[in-house]
Amino acid sequence: MEIKVTLAQTNRTRPQDSALGFGNVFTDHMFVMDYSKDNGWHDARIEPYADFSVPPSAMVFHYGQAIFEGLKAYKTPDKKICLFRAKDNFERMNRSAKGLCIPQIDVDFVMDAMKKLIKLEEKWIPETLGTSLYIRPTIIATDPFLGVRASYTYKFFIILSSVGAYYADGLNPVKIWVEKEHVRAIRGGMGEFKTAANYAASLFASEEAKKNGYDQVLWLDGIERKYIEEVGAMNIFLLIGDELVTPILNGSILPGITRYSVISLAKKWGMNISERKISVEEVFKAHEDGKLTEIFGSGTAAVISPVGEIRYGDKVISIGDGTPGETAMKFYNALTDIQYGKAEDTENWLEVIG
Amino acid sequence: MEIKVTLAQTNRTRPQDSALGFGNVFTDHMFVMDYSKDNGWHDARIEPYADFSVPPSAMVFHYGQAIFEGLKAYKTPDKKICLFRAKDNFERMNRSAKGLCIPQIDVDFVMDAMKKLIKLEEKWIPETLGTSLYIRPTIIATDPFLGVRASYTYKFFIILSSVGAYYADGLNPVKIWVEKEHVRAIRGGMGEFKTAANYAASLFASEEAKKNGYDQVLWLDGIERKYIEEVGAMNIFLLIGDELVTPILNGSILPGITRYSVISLAKKWGMNISERKISVEEVFKAHEDGKLTEIFGSGTAAVISPVGEIRYGDKVISIGDGTPGETAMKFYNALTDIQYGKAEDTENWLEVIG
Ligand SMILES: Cc1ncc(COP(=O)(O)O)c(C=O)c1O
Ligand SMILES: Cc1ncc(COP(=O)(O)O)c(C=O)c1O
Repeated sequence: MEIKVTLAQTNRTRPQDSALGFGNVFTDHMFVMDYSKDNGWHDARIEPYADFSVPPSAMVFHYGQAIFEGLKAYKTPDKKICLFRAKDNFERMNRSAKGLCIPQIDVDFVMDAMKKLIKLEEKWIPETLGTSLYIRPTIIATDPFLGVRASYTYKFFIILSSVGAYYADGLNPVKIWVEKEHVRAIRGGMGEFKTAANYAASLFASEEAKKNGYDQVLWLDGIERKYIEEVGAMNIFLLIGDELVTPILNGSILPGITRYSVISLAKKWGMNISERKISVEEVFKAHEDGKLTEIFGSGTAAVISPVGEIRYGDKVISIGDGTPGETAMKFYNALTDIQYGKAEDTENWLEVIG
Repeated sequence: MEIKVTLAQTNRTRPQDSALGFGNVFTDHMFVMDYSKDNGWHDARIEPYADFSVPPSAMVFHYGQAIFEGLKAYKTPDKKICLFRAKDNFERMNRSAKGLCIPQIDVDFVMDAMKKLIKLEEKWIPETLGTSLYIRPTIIATDPFLGVRASYTYKFFIILSSVGAYYADGLNPVKIWVEKEHVRAIRGGMGEFKTAANYAASLFASEEAKKNGYDQVLWLDGIERKYIEEVGAMNIFLLIGDELVTPILNGSILPGITRYSVISLAKKWGMNISERKISVEEVFKAHEDGKLTEIFGSGTAAVISPVGEIRYGDKVISIGDGTPGETAMKFYNALTDIQYGKAEDTENWLEVIG
């Protein structure tokens, strides 16, 4: 399929790196294609970033049939543009698509389209270490129809956002709220897909956590509410004694690409790494026994995010001394060194696109 | 708040009643208002039905923060327009809003706005018995922001759709698929709210049911997968011996307004009605014992929908003789007689608006 390119009339300027936040500055262009039963994915185009014209009856507004991905492009010191395991994102998107009855995309084609778009938007990639170009591929259901079924038409789009350094002043440990009452996802549900519904389901508890002074929610399994699953937009790792442990994928946890990367590196480094069930009880017991030395999250936005405090009902524990743990830092440095082209890409995770 | 009215330039014509389906014919105008932190709900207006201009980064596309309602306006034989328990819908909408961190609406104000809109669109209300004007109030999150939190801005809108008779040739019993693997909602989740996510979560199993020749899915509880909860867009009732029974509201079932109405009438008629847990096992056992005489769904779209067959894994049972059961018909007639103004509104459920 050919990609038709329509250039924007006026090009805006990228804010200074230090003024960048997350997810609120968008670039001049976007990639869009449409789907219909008769034509499949068609009308692929790069066009000026602009509002969509969407009927009030569009199914996405009513029935939430929508999936997305989140990945980043990095500018290396020698001005190369790099992508980190990007194909994994589009493969995950196809798994999400299957779960939501959305037609599959051609991974190679959308990879090419994305690269073309990123090259066109090169000036939007900030260059300070820690900054990046956040990439948001999305598919929404567009049938103008009020009845519950899979839509017959869809829109796929990729938008780009210049994002600032997640840690402007070094890695600050976050405070985590273990949610006892609300449930985000469940075995047999949609937790393993990157779909709008999971995030809607997280809002109420997240607001409560915030009101109580906590940064993010740690979700428990929905059945027994005993086993830890993942944080709002990160997977979670714990260092208990010499065991680095992360909850096993059970159908209700997003299989994070950063999670896979941490696991690979840990194996490579000969660490004692396991994917298994971990109960909240075990976490608190390990703390009591003085064995819980680190907790950190893994995800595209922050890469690695050390956790400094956990609250579960009335119980509060501190992990570490207020500074990021050694293991968290080791993974953070290893991953960002690869992403920004500062270390050799021994795992073949990087793709240089320009 | 004043409602600004902008009339459409050209008014389309309503299709013939017999050509009407469900949810695909929209009227000439809609009601819209916007929300911002500073101004609250503002800019209330009735304007021509048209596409919205929505940024690709609008939070509703990514995080599914959206709620809706579904209710109907009926035309009586003497040309009055009637609403059925409409206020209950907006009160339910406010409960959904709370669950999704969406600001509350002023129920009296939106009721007035809706009535004004319906009166303006009177010609779109079909008049054949069984047809109606379907009303879809909706709220979507509109912040152009890629990060998970409750949006700061929202759009509330009401769109109207002329809908045909659900049962063109009499009440046809439907075939129901009891879902063993997939879970729609869970205690501590969002099942009790009318929010996009629940419908997204239902797609995969619904498509599977359809492929197997079944019309709708009957969901089981997400924890034990033992107790029946509700059907795709209906609550469910069973007549077992002389007991009319419906699953008790447990946090993962939508509190249907038709459900409440059936329960009220059953009480009034002195029936043995109970709201309690019902396991699939009990349903099949009751059938074996010859005690399961009727199953029917209750919901705004079909009002009452008799169930003629249920499948659970390899087990299939037929209920009734292929025609709607007596009890289902009794509720159907009583409810539609009230809705179309053919019987006295003894329960005070009807509101005449013009
Ligand atoms: C719910 C959830 N879990 C985990 C992750 C981490 O996944 P990844 O490492 O692929 O960014 C994310 C964010 O992408 C997420 O939204
Ligand atoms: C999931 C679900 N359950 C039950 C119902 C029935 O509710 P009501 O009787 O208010 O239409 C609906 C439809 O509105 C629904 O979507």
